[in-house]
Amino acid sequence: MTTATAAPLSPTPRTSPTRGRNRTVAERDHLLAFLDEALLAHLGVWAGGHPVVLPTAYAVDPDGPDEGGSLYLHGSVGAGWLARALEHDVCVTVTELDGLVAARSGFHHSMNYRSAVVIGRARRVEDEQERRHALDLVVDQMIPGRSASLRPPTRKELAATVVLALPLAEASMKRRAEGPVDDPEDIAAGIWGGVIPLRRVAGGPVSDQDSDPSRVPADVADRAAGFR
Amino acid sequence: MTTATAAPLSPTPRTSPTRGRNRTVAERDHLLAFLDEALLAHLGVWAGGHPVVLPTAYAVDPDGPDEGGSLYLHGSVGAGWLARALEHDVCVTVTELDGLVAARSGFHHSMNYRSAVVIGRARRVEDEQERRHALDLVVDQMIPGRSASLRPPTRKELAATVVLALPLAEASMKRRAEGPVDDPEDIAAGIWGGVIPLRRVAGGPVSDQDSDPSRVPADVADRAAGFR
Repeated sequence: MTTATAAPLSPTPRTSPTRGRNRTVAERDHLLAFLDEALLAHLGVWAGGHPVVLPTAYAVDPDGPDEGGSLYLHGSVGAGWLARALEHDVCVTVTELDGLVAARSGFHHSMNYRSAVVIGRARRVEDEQERRHALDLVVDQMIPGRSASLRPPTRKELAATVVLALPLAEASMKRRAEGPVDDPEDIAAGIWGGVIPLRRVAGGPVSDQDSDPSRVPADVADRAAGFR
Repeated sequence: MTTATAAPLSPTPRTSPTRGRNRTVAERDHLLAFLDEALLAHLGVWAGGHPVVLPTAYAVDPDGPDEGGSLYLHGSVGAGWLARALEHDVCVTVTELDGLVAARSGFHHSMNYRSAVVIGRARRVEDEQERRHALDLVVDQMIPGRSASLRPPTRKELAATVVLALPLAEASMKRRAEGPVDDPEDIAAGIWGGVIPLRRVAGGPVSDQDSDPSRVPADVADRAAGFR
């Protein structure tokens, strides 16, 4: 672990939660571990008159060239959000839902979750080596080790792809991982309260019609097994 | 099903996907069914200089008073994003991840997902009956039927809670639900391709320390069982 990753998070006012400070995760290690584990980001860009929030794959290089490390996104050169993303600061939020909190009143119903918010100015990655590295990381975020088992991208594929990098410097993380926080009267009344834990699981790999089901690669099999 | 819900989606330019039109879901029924099933929204608001994207619970009333039906959000009166959400149009995006698409090249790696995007001006709900209805819907979105089994909110709880409504008029939905779309050369080369299906499952309900594990309510037990 590098010095950078062992440091505490030092969010600015715009990434400092104004509510629920007790849920704030202060360690950069925890942020990086969470971003390493999660699969899906929601990217918010200003589209002129309104924000747009889109689901997207992502990957992180804690030792990337941006301040605090690099969060990478990719997209087609034809994607409408892309030009917008470079005009203003953007927000990338990664959330995993861990449970439904069934409190003893509607008011105290909640969810258990982990969520990271990164705000900053995206940089369009131009360096060819960094672009390839970032695209490999995005594939490996989905299925660890997979990029090394595949052919390299073609010149045409690279030309069709834009890679953006966002500094991890301005980031915050929140986590709720507990039972309901109820009013004493509702507890005394004997009403049931608790949590329904949620998790993501994988089904067995489904081979494409042109692929041999007996030849599922180890990285794919491991990934599918790892979710259980 | 009302006439409104049976109608096709008629997105405006800002909710018309510019890429991947083949993934567009054109039926309002499908949008509503998806929003009924999913659990978590990401709300994007303009915070002055940058967007902020926050995870949040939500609920939908297809027959709500807003054009196309109402999408409800709630929050604490002290929440920082709340004032911002009323100053500009907002974007609410709901995404469920359904699989990892392990293509035969890195370029064609993808995810299977369903995602709905709703853009519009939020309305602060003032009518007390609509506020209570919306808050019940948010609880029931997490655990169907639960709101009816709980005490009504107190005056103090209602005073601490803000409810926002967003018209479902301007909405779009995309879905990817297939195997990899690979280049013929990579298929001919005999490389394996396929999908790792993903789904959300629940563990058994975890009773709070002051609750009797043998008295888990039926709505909670049903919800936990329904995820499997």
